[in-house]
Formats: sequence, C-alpha cells, structure tokens
Amino acid sequence: MLFTFTDFGPTRLYTGQLHAALARVAPRLRIVDLLDDAPAFNVSACGELLRALLRQLPEASTVLAVVDPGVGGARRPLVVRSGGLWLVGPDNGLFSPLAEGVGFQAWEITWRPASLSQTFHGRDLFAPVAARLAAGENLQESLRPVADIVRLPAAPPQVIYLDSYGNCLTNLHAEALPAGQELMLDGRLCPRRQCFEQGAPGEPFCYENSLGLLEIAINQADAAAALGLRVGSPVGLG
Amino acid sequence: MLFTFTDFGPTRLYTGQLHAALARVAPRLRIVDLLDDAPAFNVSACGELLRALLRQLPEASTVLAVVDPGVGGARRPLVVRSGGLWLVGPDNGLFSPLAEGVGFQAWEITWRPASLSQTFHGRDLFAPVAARLAAGENLQESLRPVADIVRLPAAPPQVIYLDSYGNCLTNLHAEALPAGQELMLDGRLCPRRQCFEQGAPGEPFCYENSLGLLEIAINQADAAAALGLRVGSPVGLG
Amino acid sequence: MLFTFTDFGPTRLYTGQLHAALARVAPRLRIVDLLDDAPAFNVSACGELLRALLRQLPEASTVLAVVDPGVGGARRPLVVRSGGLWLVGPDNGLFSPLAEGVGFQAWEITWRPASLSQTFHGRDLFAPVAARLAAGENLQESLRPVADIVRLPAAPPQVIYLDSYGNCLTNLHAEALPAGQELMLDGRLCPRRQCFEQGAPGEPFCYENSLGLLEIAINQADAAAALGLRVGSPVGLG
Repeated sequence: MLFTFTDFGPTRLYTGQLHAALARVAPRLRIVDLLDDAPAFNVSACGELLRALLRQLPEASTVLAVVDPGVGGARRPLVVRSGGLWLVGPDNGLFSPLAEGVGFQAWEITWRPASLSQTFHGRDLFAPVAARLAAGENLQESLRPVADIVRLPAAPPQVIYLDSYGNCLTNLHAEALPAGQELMLDGRLCPRRQCFEQGAPGEPFCYENSLGLLEIAINQADAAAALGLRVGSPVGLG
Repeated sequence: MLFTFTDFGPTRLYTGQLHAALARVAPRLRIVDLLDDAPAFNVSACGELLRALLRQLPEASTVLAVVDPGVGGARRPLVVRSGGLWLVGPDNGLFSPLAEGVGFQAWEITWRPASLSQTFHGRDLFAPVAARLAAGENLQESLRPVADIVRLPAAPPQVIYLDSYGNCLTNLHAEALPAGQELMLDGRLCPRRQCFEQGAPGEPFCYENSLGLLEIAINQADAAAALGLRVGSPVGLG
Repeated sequence: MLFTFTDFGPTRLYTGQLHAALARVAPRLRIVDLLDDAPAFNVSACGELLRALLRQLPEASTVLAVVDPGVGGARRPLVVRSGGLWLVGPDNGLFSPLAEGVGFQAWEITWRPASLSQTFHGRDLFAPVAARLAAGENLQESLRPVADIVRLPAAPPQVIYLDSYGNCLTNLHAEALPAGQELMLDGRLCPRRQCFEQGAPGEPFCYENSLGLLEIAINQADAAAALGLRVGSPVGLG
C-alpha cells in the first residue's frame, strides 16, 4: 500500500498526475491519499503532521511525501527508512521530526528519469521511485547512502493545521505534556475535554485528537474563525 | 463495493485515514467516496441526501456513513440493513429517512477495537465493521439486534446541499409533489425546466435533478450566491 | 486505465456517482481523477487543459471528459480517438484542440441507457460507454461515425487555470512561442525562470510548467491574488 502526503490542495491536477505516474510503474498498487492540503511552504508544520499520521499506517507501507517548494533547486531527493516504513521525498526538513524521533536510515536518489520537469519532481522522480519501492523492487543501483538529512529546529507550540470543521491541530503531543501543564490561549487556560459534546455552546476547549495531538475546537462551530487562529498561530503552555 | 458518505470535507485528512483503516481489514475492497462534504452538524439534511444517493448504488453495496457530531458520547453505533444495502454509522437520526421509507433492520455494534479514540469512531470502529461486512464476514458476535433507531421529525421544505456550481438541492422529491404544486421562492413561482439550457440568462428555475430531487439553478451561474440560499434556507410550495 | 476530466469541483457528489457507474460496468477498472475542477462553463479553457494533460497519459488510456453545460440539449455525445487515446464526452468544442492538433476520428454515441436523466449524462450515458471502451468491448452497435466535431475558434493568450497555490496556467505552449517572444503582464515583461527558488520575493515570473505551458507564479506566494488574475484574464506577448 502506498500513501501520498502532499500540499497539492484538494483539487486533482497534481494528485491525478501523481497517481498516473505511480500506476504506470505499478499497475496494481493500492494508493491512498493521506493528506493533500498540508500547509504549503510550511515544511516544519508539514513534518509534524507527517510524523503524527505515520503512526496510523500499516507496517511496511510506502509514503510518497511531496511538500517541495525548492523543487528544481539544490535540495536532494531522498528515500528514508523509519519505523518500518519507506518514505520518498525532498531533503528539505520534511523528515526532520522522524530523524529526531524513532530514528532513520537515508539514501539520496541518484537515478534520474529520461524526462525530468523543473517543477514537478513528485510526478517525474519521486513517484516512480516510490512505486518501485512499494512493488518490492531492489533499488540499490538508484540510491546512495547519506550520513544525515536536513534537520529543522523544533518549532514552538503552534497551530499546524485547520481541518474542514475549523478545528485547530497543534504540534503538542498530549502524552508528552509535562505534568500539570495545560494549553493556553491568549493567556487563559483552554480547558481539556474528552469529546465534542462536552463543550458548552461557544466554549473553546482542547482535547487529545485521534492522532495524539492537542487540538482546539468549539462544539459544532468553527473554532479557527471564532478565535482567529490559522497555521502558525502560537499557543501557550501554563 | 463500499461507499463512504461523510461530512469530512473535500480534503483528505479524515477520508484518507478511513481508507487506510478499511484497506487494513479488506485489502482488495473497492472504495468509492460518494459524498465527503455532507453538511456538517446537520444530521437531518445529511439523512435526506443519503437516502437520495442510495438509490444510485448497486444491490448489496456497503455504505460507511459518518456524520457524527456526537462521537464519543452516548449515541449507539449501528449496522442497518435497508433496501438491499448494508449501512454502518451512528444512531443519531442519519438513518431516519430510511426507516420511514423502504423499511430496515438494525443492530447495535457491541464489538470494540483494542484502541478506540474519543473523536474518530469512523476510523476506529465503523470502518473495521464496514470492511468486514463488505468482505462478507459473519458479524453475529459483534452485533445485537435493536427494536428501533433514532428518528428525527420530517424537516420542512428546504435547501439541503449546495453543489460546486451553486445549484441548490432541496429535500423535495419531484415525484412526490402533490398535483399542481410547484416550488416557490420568496412567494414567487420558480418555473420548472428540463435542462440548464432552457433557463433564460439570470432566470432562477427548478428541475428534477439526477437524484429525483427538486433543485434550484440559474443557467451557467451560481444560484446560491445570486439568490442568497444556503443549507437550511426554506423553500415554499404553492 | 480510465481517467476522468470534469468541472464537478473537488467535492465528491458527482465524481462519486461517476465512479459508481463506471465500477458497475467494469468492476476491476482502475480509475484516476485527472482533473475535477476544470473551469465550469468555459469549454475553451477546458479543451486547452485537456489537450495539455493528455500528453501525460499512458498509450491506450480511456478518458471520460465531462464539461457539459449543454447536457440534456441538442449537443451530440461523442467517442473520439486521438493520439492513441479514447475519449468520451460531449460534442461542444471540448475536443476542439485535439482535432486541430494530433488529428482524430469521431463517432456519435447512438446507444441510450434504460434510464437517462436530463442533467447527468456523465453518469448515465458517458460513464457506461467509457467503461465498456476501457474494458476492450466492441462498441460498433453503439456508435455512428461522424465527419467532423464542433470546433471553437482558437482563444487569445490568457489564463486558463488557477492551481491551489495561486499559480496561473496560460494557454501558451512554451515550445510554440515565436523566437524572441516573451510573456507580458500589463505591458511589462514577465521574466522567465526555471524553478520557483529563482524568483525573488514578491517578483512575478513565468516558467515552462510540467505540462509544457507557460505559467505565472510568485515564489512561495499566491500570484493570482497578488496580480488579480483569474481564468480568462488576458496575457500578452512581446
């Protein structure tokens, strides 16, 4: 099974071409689009989302991760092995949280396709490699081991994604919170709830979401709009 | 074949995890996303849309229907058998129009997964059950028959969905309209047309859409924006 | 492999029903949604996008192309053979650029389904025909050769699509540009770059995109919003 993780947006223009490129190499490969609206140009937030989502994937899955504002520039194309998964994507810090967490091995992709566009390596370079990995092919000739990958500094506590309800995902792992610490918004405690129904009408609250992250919501309302939050908005701990 | 019906929105964050959970249980299952932007928090409108869409599905399909604002609360998880289809989802009224219409049998899902999040039963509870149903597995040990399901009062005539063109789907079944009755907007007759080309420029009209519902449109224009209609806007009959 | 090309928008209401109709005829058919937000009502721009995307598809693919504002009216339903591909859709000019380019053969679809809605021939008429073509079925009984198809006049240089980053695709083929000609915006030269990183902050530039079209962008910013461009906005050459 192959999972895509991109910032291509919910329309199909780029994701469709990605699927076509994957299917050309591996016609029977099952493809699941895991995220298609990772926050564009925000590699740090994307890396945090990617790490959180990977824990949901079956062992031995392949992940094609394309958040690549530097496409066509000097950044290296990578294959990364981490936590039993194969990942393929650019060496721009996207895989940084994996390297800090469960550990990794990494290879630079030295193979190049006959035709390589300047602005869509997802389709031309990463997809064929990911499809071959998912098909169990030996890629030894196409890869060169690298000692390390690009690592971004850890980001401060902040919003990293708005879902379609207006719920605000943060980069805070609920189980990693120091004892007694709680999430703060504008200097006020954001109370912890278990599920949406426990929120009083109009009351912002937070909860451990289904990915293990702290998330800010208002029951049956758009918390992002009500609270003026967006990707990158800081949240506090206190 | 399994169909998803959700209010997750057009982005993939939740739908992607649903597919991953389904594929884990039934790797070869064909999944079609039938609706992903059912009106959030509006279970009544969602139920009407679901009923209309079900008539398009092949006999014996499974439908994973997740519009679940009460997730993690007291509402029961259900399997429903209706009109030759299997449905899986929350007992919050979503299946109400089916019970009023073609009849049904219902079971509470007593099975629980090893790990159950508070806020994403679609992924953790409903998807595995739906995948097992679609795979033809016997679920007797996982289900308990129930005498009835939650029923919502019938909603008054109203808009239940805006499509991407701005066409406004109503909950009025064209064939169930009393003889001589027609759709009214702001007290004026909304004339009936057969297809878009029959609409004069700027003229609001209605037609029996491809699901059998009355729908309001303006030829090559956004009727919702032009008329100020949204989900829940009342329409008249006269 | 079958590809869909539509203006249904990123939500699933119509695309989901299309998939259901395709799978009913060809249960194992692989379907890739190539474009779902082709500019509605703008058949000319859609035709240009379709032509550009077709060059990415594997030989012998089938393309279900539904941009059909005249559905239910007099326009003919077509099967078109062009450049090794099969295309199915309305005879409204959508296939015009193919006819002008690589050449074509065309047939009117004379087959009609038992039940045909007035407003969704994509689902009821085009999808079953496309699925049968993709399955390799002989459609001789369902088709009648036609001498020509509807052809639209060539459109002047303009924006034909905005992607989710705000990049603006034009209908100018980079390789077909007369020597020395470059793209102009508001009478000023829009400089050519190779990749996004080469753009200075805030600087609009153009580049040959991964489909071979000239595209206007600003590095890590929304060019459409910054420059006030939308589908149909004219661009110059100078």
